[in-house]
Amino acid sequence: MKNKDKKLSKKNFSEWYHEILALADIVDDRYPVKGMLIYKQWGLFIIRETQRRLESLLEENGHQLVLFPVVIPENILGKESKHIAGFENEVFWVTHAGKNKLDVKLALRPTSETPIYEMFRLWIRSHKDLPLKVHQSCAVYRYETKHTRPLIRGREFLWNEGHAAHKDEEDAKKNINEIKKIYSKLIQDFLFIPFLINKRPEWDRFPGATETYAFDTIMPDGKTLQIATVHNLGQNFSKVFDINFEDETGEKRFVHQTSYGPSFGRLLAALIAIHGDDLGLILPPKLAPIQVVIVPIFYKDSDKDKILDYAKKIEAKLKEMNLRVYLDLSDERPGAKFYYWEMKGVPLRIEIGPRDLANEEITIARRDTKEKISIKFSALEKIFDIFSDFERNIKEKAKKEFQSKVFEANDLETLKEKAGSGICISGWCGNEDCKVKIEEFTSILGVEEGKEKKCVICGKKGIEIRTGKPY
Amino acid sequence: MKNKDKKLSKKNFSEWYHEILALADIVDDRYPVKGMLIYKQWGLFIIRETQRRLESLLEENGHQLVLFPVVIPENILGKESKHIAGFENEVFWVTHAGKNKLDVKLALRPTSETPIYEMFRLWIRSHKDLPLKVHQSCAVYRYETKHTRPLIRGREFLWNEGHAAHKDEEDAKKNINEIKKIYSKLIQDFLFIPFLINKRPEWDRFPGATETYAFDTIMPDGKTLQIATVHNLGQNFSKVFDINFEDETGEKRFVHQTSYGPSFGRLLAALIAIHGDDLGLILPPKLAPIQVVIVPIFYKDSDKDKILDYAKKIEAKLKEMNLRVYLDLSDERPGAKFYYWEMKGVPLRIEIGPRDLANEEITIARRDTKEKISIKFSALEKIFDIFSDFERNIKEKAKKEFQSKVFEANDLETLKEKAGSGICISGWCGNEDCKVKIEEFTSILGVEEGKEKKCVICGKKGIEIRTGKPY
Repeated sequence: MKNKDKKLSKKNFSEWYHEILALADIVDDRYPVKGMLIYKQWGLFIIRETQRRLESLLEENGHQLVLFPVVIPENILGKESKHIAGFENEVFWVTHAGKNKLDVKLALRPTSETPIYEMFRLWIRSHKDLPLKVHQSCAVYRYETKHTRPLIRGREFLWNEGHAAHKDEEDAKKNINEIKKIYSKLIQDFLFIPFLINKRPEWDRFPGATETYAFDTIMPDGKTLQIATVHNLGQNFSKVFDINFEDETGEKRFVHQTSYGPSFGRLLAALIAIHGDDLGLILPPKLAPIQVVIVPIFYKDSDKDKILDYAKKIEAKLKEMNLRVYLDLSDERPGAKFYYWEMKGVPLRIEIGPRDLANEEITIARRDTKEKISIKFSALEKIFDIFSDFERNIKEKAKKEFQSKVFEANDLETLKEKAGSGICISGWCGNEDCKVKIEEFTSILGVEEGKEKKCVICGKKGIEIRTGKPY
Repeated sequence: MKNKDKKLSKKNFSEWYHEILALADIVDDRYPVKGMLIYKQWGLFIIRETQRRLESLLEENGHQLVLFPVVIPENILGKESKHIAGFENEVFWVTHAGKNKLDVKLALRPTSETPIYEMFRLWIRSHKDLPLKVHQSCAVYRYETKHTRPLIRGREFLWNEGHAAHKDEEDAKKNINEIKKIYSKLIQDFLFIPFLINKRPEWDRFPGATETYAFDTIMPDGKTLQIATVHNLGQNFSKVFDINFEDETGEKRFVHQTSYGPSFGRLLAALIAIHGDDLGLILPPKLAPIQVVIVPIFYKDSDKDKILDYAKKIEAKLKEMNLRVYLDLSDERPGAKFYYWEMKGVPLRIEIGPRDLANEEITIARRDTKEKISIKFSALEKIFDIFSDFERNIKEKAKKEFQSKVFEANDLETLKEKAGSGICISGWCGNEDCKVKIEEFTSILGVEEGKEKKCVICGKKGIEIRTGKPY
């Protein structure tokens, strides 16, 4: 148990964020390679649960789990020209092994389109093999030159990447919609993180994609954070990787492709940032490594054994209910225990004193609302209702907060004023000059081609855009 | 569904092994980097279940889950001189990133003693922090110059590695015993793979260790396969990494350390090789991606709907029982389906024909014994008993096979004759000349210092040794 010498305050978000990562033992950022972290148990548990949930959604949808090697031969990474142009400044290169220089340099994967499509060529023969949908959960490597930030921008990060091959554009679009739904389910209904899906402008697409959709959330400091992306790759990769199939009529055709991925690190960063408060983390029950902590309170020595027995009885019962429960019997004072487990974000704390024992009751303290609730021991299953209400509450709170940071900005003044405080909804005529003027102080995150809106710079007819300052 | 053109035969083990890996879609070894595999869903499922079981055993034992970066700076990997001497010919080096040459070369981890102990120095202050036990499941990288073989010897392989720091030698030995028990439980009671634990001779220890214990199993071709190791590191690493703690008296002392790991790839290879037969894989129910496959058999079109309804009813019931079940409604003939799912190793097949329907019965075919068993629909939970018997049966079969390959070899002739057919129990006087003579045709896998046995070469007093030809 670590001592807290200092009060956390979320007002200074950047400081709060770094402090809580260390205090709650989420990651250790002291590893001697810039931008690379050590994941600790408390954080890894959340990442693993997120991963498991996503994987099961993808598998229900027909995705096959795979795992590819971490390295990509230079000639394969370089096949698609726009793709390699987008990544060549960010690639870590393995050039030697033992005392030998390698004949072909190996890249640490920055993303896995190229190695996976190299195999798709072998795996796909006929229209019966389509759609082929695979996914893997792994780390990827990018030599970031921007300022790195734990879980938000690193040189090694954990994600799940999905890759699919389709018989035509229509099936590719269908998959994009299904993936958007799956990611929405994960992010909104499991992590309770609000977001907007933005269609990135042409200059901000994934290298090699014909369309890129991004899930953007808003962090407490008003900056936006891209937590997942979905790409339409058209036939750009299938043509250079020669991924073709025989269609129903016996004709050879190139597949259409899609690829997509959420970042587990950024999802964890957003979860921490959006739900947490001045006391520390607030973890949704399904994701909390410990869901219920039991703190027995001994006033008199004569009560001690009885209270302890009662605490153990509750612990056993909760375990029977398949809950992750921890009975804190350390030497700390109850107040210090409360403080510590609140900081760690444990959803419910059960305090057990002599009165609880006498009444066969249990006092439950909710981490989110700080409410105290008394329930009978015989009605312990009410905890599940409390969990549901907990989830509903943090979801709603996060949503309200998010909505308060989405602004209509129909004039330049508002756009300037609100830039960096969230996401602005504005208009843009499509003209390069107006784009440059907008991007002097903010970034265009999304272009909504279907929605008309006057340009915020020149006043001419345009389309809706979403702007913000991304991490 | 793949067609099988050729009959498998386990007599030619090497051919059988490579064919079944491809046929059952365990891995794809056509990735264009030597010694690196693509793991496919059927194999990954088994690895993940093995990993999950091991991780939960380690966590019950007080191990904390961590995940370290894949790269190790050269200066850290090189700190312990014996360790780096043992690995320097096998290390992949990252030397460049983007267009820049890195100031410090980065190794792809061949094992993680050095990066983890670099952090142990920061994490350990007092005797209260001890023992500190962590583990991670990850891939490691070794530039093997020997012949590579899928899952058995590769340049990228999946494992779990545990690392612990102890206050003294006694606690280190205690941990070694606990880990031996945990690994035994995993390998013997979950994977049903028989093994011997061999204390490696001095010249075959892990680089930097004072003792190395290895779990050796025997493959169908008589070669031995090291599937897990446990090392006593003494204070070799703690002294160079300066990992010290304040003991109860306030004195600074260096920790003792242990490290250990099983290879998930090799465990999978052994599982496939040891339990499989001429029809293909035989998977233990707990590890099978599909535990029960249902194949409806339609003789007459008029029966079709009724049989299909019955099949779906059984499927629903089995899912309710939390079983992984698959109803095969593909266009293949029943015979082809039987063949395919037998090859994939699915433990139980349920065939449903008109008679089963009429009698509200179910015909179950066991993959291990090929027995057919009829049970009533109302007694479906008998499947769990069949699973238990299945496990008992393959465990016993594997054990018998193993025991038939362990030989007493008290004279040179027997030792020579049996070398390469399994493990020989012999004696050795400790003399270098005699060692050289033994290792001319076999390898010393284990030295049992406590057990006296006459030297198989010179006849003088010696200790028991175990020999064999390892993969």
